[in-house]
Amino acid sequence: MERCTCSKAGSAERTAGATLTQPNDSALVTIDLYPYVGETPPRAFRSWLTPNPLFYVRNHFSEPEIDLTSWSLSVEGSVSTPLSLTSGQIEAMPKHTVPVTLECAGNNRTDLEPAVPGNKFQCGAISTAIWAGVSLRNVLEQAGVGPGATEVLFEGADAGEPEPGYGQTPYLRSLPLEVAMHPDTLLTYEMNGEALAPEHGHPLRLIVPGWYAMSSVKWLRAIRVIDYSFEGFFQTDRYVINSGLRKPDPVTRMLVKSHINEPEHGQALSLGEHLVTGVAWSGSGRISNVEVSDDGGVTWRPARLDGPDHRYAWRQWCFSWTPSKPGHYTLMARAQDELGTWQPLEPDWNALGYAINGVMAVCVSVTG
Amino acid sequence: MERCTCSKAGSAERTAGATLTQPNDSALVTIDLYPYVGETPPRAFRSWLTPNPLFYVRNHFSEPEIDLTSWSLSVEGSVSTPLSLTSGQIEAMPKHTVPVTLECAGNNRTDLEPAVPGNKFQCGAISTAIWAGVSLRNVLEQAGVGPGATEVLFEGADAGEPEPGYGQTPYLRSLPLEVAMHPDTLLTYEMNGEALAPEHGHPLRLIVPGWYAMSSVKWLRAIRVIDYSFEGFFQTDRYVINSGLRKPDPVTRMLVKSHINEPEHGQALSLGEHLVTGVAWSGSGRISNVEVSDDGGVTWRPARLDGPDHRYAWRQWCFSWTPSKPGHYTLMARAQDELGTWQPLEPDWNALGYAINGVMAVCVSVTG
Repeated sequence: MERCTCSKAGSAERTAGATLTQPNDSALVTIDLYPYVGETPPRAFRSWLTPNPLFYVRNHFSEPEIDLTSWSLSVEGSVSTPLSLTSGQIEAMPKHTVPVTLECAGNNRTDLEPAVPGNKFQCGAISTAIWAGVSLRNVLEQAGVGPGATEVLFEGADAGEPEPGYGQTPYLRSLPLEVAMHPDTLLTYEMNGEALAPEHGHPLRLIVPGWYAMSSVKWLRAIRVIDYSFEGFFQTDRYVINSGLRKPDPVTRMLVKSHINEPEHGQALSLGEHLVTGVAWSGSGRISNVEVSDDGGVTWRPARLDGPDHRYAWRQWCFSWTPSKPGHYTLMARAQDELGTWQPLEPDWNALGYAINGVMAVCVSVTG
Repeated sequence: MERCTCSKAGSAERTAGATLTQPNDSALVTIDLYPYVGETPPRAFRSWLTPNPLFYVRNHFSEPEIDLTSWSLSVEGSVSTPLSLTSGQIEAMPKHTVPVTLECAGNNRTDLEPAVPGNKFQCGAISTAIWAGVSLRNVLEQAGVGPGATEVLFEGADAGEPEPGYGQTPYLRSLPLEVAMHPDTLLTYEMNGEALAPEHGHPLRLIVPGWYAMSSVKWLRAIRVIDYSFEGFFQTDRYVINSGLRKPDPVTRMLVKSHINEPEHGQALSLGEHLVTGVAWSGSGRISNVEVSDDGGVTWRPARLDGPDHRYAWRQWCFSWTPSKPGHYTLMARAQDELGTWQPLEPDWNALGYAINGVMAVCVSVTG
């Protein structure tokens, strides 16, 4: 069971007065500056759609400077027709729009004990946007995938030395061919109806719905169809689940998880009815159930699912809670996805701190 | 059959060079200044979600100045418990999020011949956003609707003299009780994850999904449950279908309609495959079919529906078109909703120019 510290960070208590002007905090919570990493302020989770300026940012290197007039996307490797696509050619292909929640694989890393290295993410490395672009499948079919192909490798224009002594490398990630060929795997140039911003990968970002966001390569400049299993720093040195017990597993789909939006941790409430609200998501399917406990996980009652219901986006939920007497309460939420998988009470500890999906606990006091 | 002039207005031809930075035009197309009325630039229709700064604006009076610290919403009339709700109380109620396309009843008014008075809307008085707030039903249930109630009347904080000699009136509209009690009829304070902007009705806007947008009262300050049929300037003098043939009918749900996003009217194309894309919507249900004609409506072929599929939001569609020889072509699109209603070739002319949903024609030339 995780004690969420994030609802204390950067968000004022709700005031009794006027609030409709300021539903969200107004800026990202900075986690690192070089390269820039910033979390979405937790109050923004109360909106199903994350406005672009509040969408979390996780860079691995400095943002590359890209001149769009000379930019093109190369598609190469095990293909019958290598391509070099300009932005105009990409825009002229059928445009496909998909709502997608992206979560950083290291989100909630600070929940782990003992602590692990890496960006000190609390709970804000997750956001939801409407993404639009072209199906990667269309581009791959245009290039003609070779018969022996097994993976597709993506190269960002961002590059650097990921750790001392490693040497220079661009940001590189691969996908299994069948994931790359899924029609909802997108090459996006638009986010919430606006042109992709530089910090989100302008001019082109791969979006892999359901997968942790390390797969959604920003500043995409090359796609290489390959017939081997790619190994690279961000594929095999990082973004692997290393529990010390067995061979590390790659990080892939987002594990089923929920977040309590309100009340906030440490909040003082009066006796009476209160709403417990939040979001829940899974990379493996829609959310089928959310349950809430007010006794630290001993008993659970069903929450009501609400709002837009999309395969790849988080689902809002709401629970009417009327504590019977004053006291201290530990509120918890757990989600189940349509495959039947329940969010665990405790996350699996792993040395690099990925895929942390333990139940969140919010402690509140109720006064008479 | 309507010749759409809007794709010529305010939108440059697509250039061959870099375009991914500027998918939409950057500002509203001004229709009137006092009060402000502005259309969404047509190129923004290529995005399923309309960004807030490009969401069309149709004001009836000057925007009211509202001090949120003293603002409250009154709920009165035929109710057992009159209410005065602060913004904090409204925010504390269950939040409900719904994607909704709003279309002004006068959209495409310039299509009519003979011409009619009113704002000279081309095709840009329509936009789509993710709206969030509380179900009006929750508020009405809290107030307790009286047994004889038949309608609910909504008053905006905007007021003035709608035409010379009429006298002062606030903006007033009523809804049948059953529409007001639908759980998706919302009192919204949020649009696309951001606080509602002043021009869109801050602090509170009624949103009536499926209805032309005159029902979605902005700057809401009072709700009155009534047991009579409301008559008022914006209910019986305006927003009625007056064809001169019979008693005027009130404007209610959006008629089934489609828009061609690309190619643009007057565009010159080369021989080969081109995409015809657009959006389609109906206030009475989901879109079930879109068909495209390249011979001025003689023959029709099915388009492919794409993108998010929501009950109250427009649906994107796409059609692969390969003209067989050079020449001038008249492209048309028609939509059908799930009730089986087809968009008509010609709209019904009416004296005030509302609910104009004739098929749009886009003329292009194809050169060898």
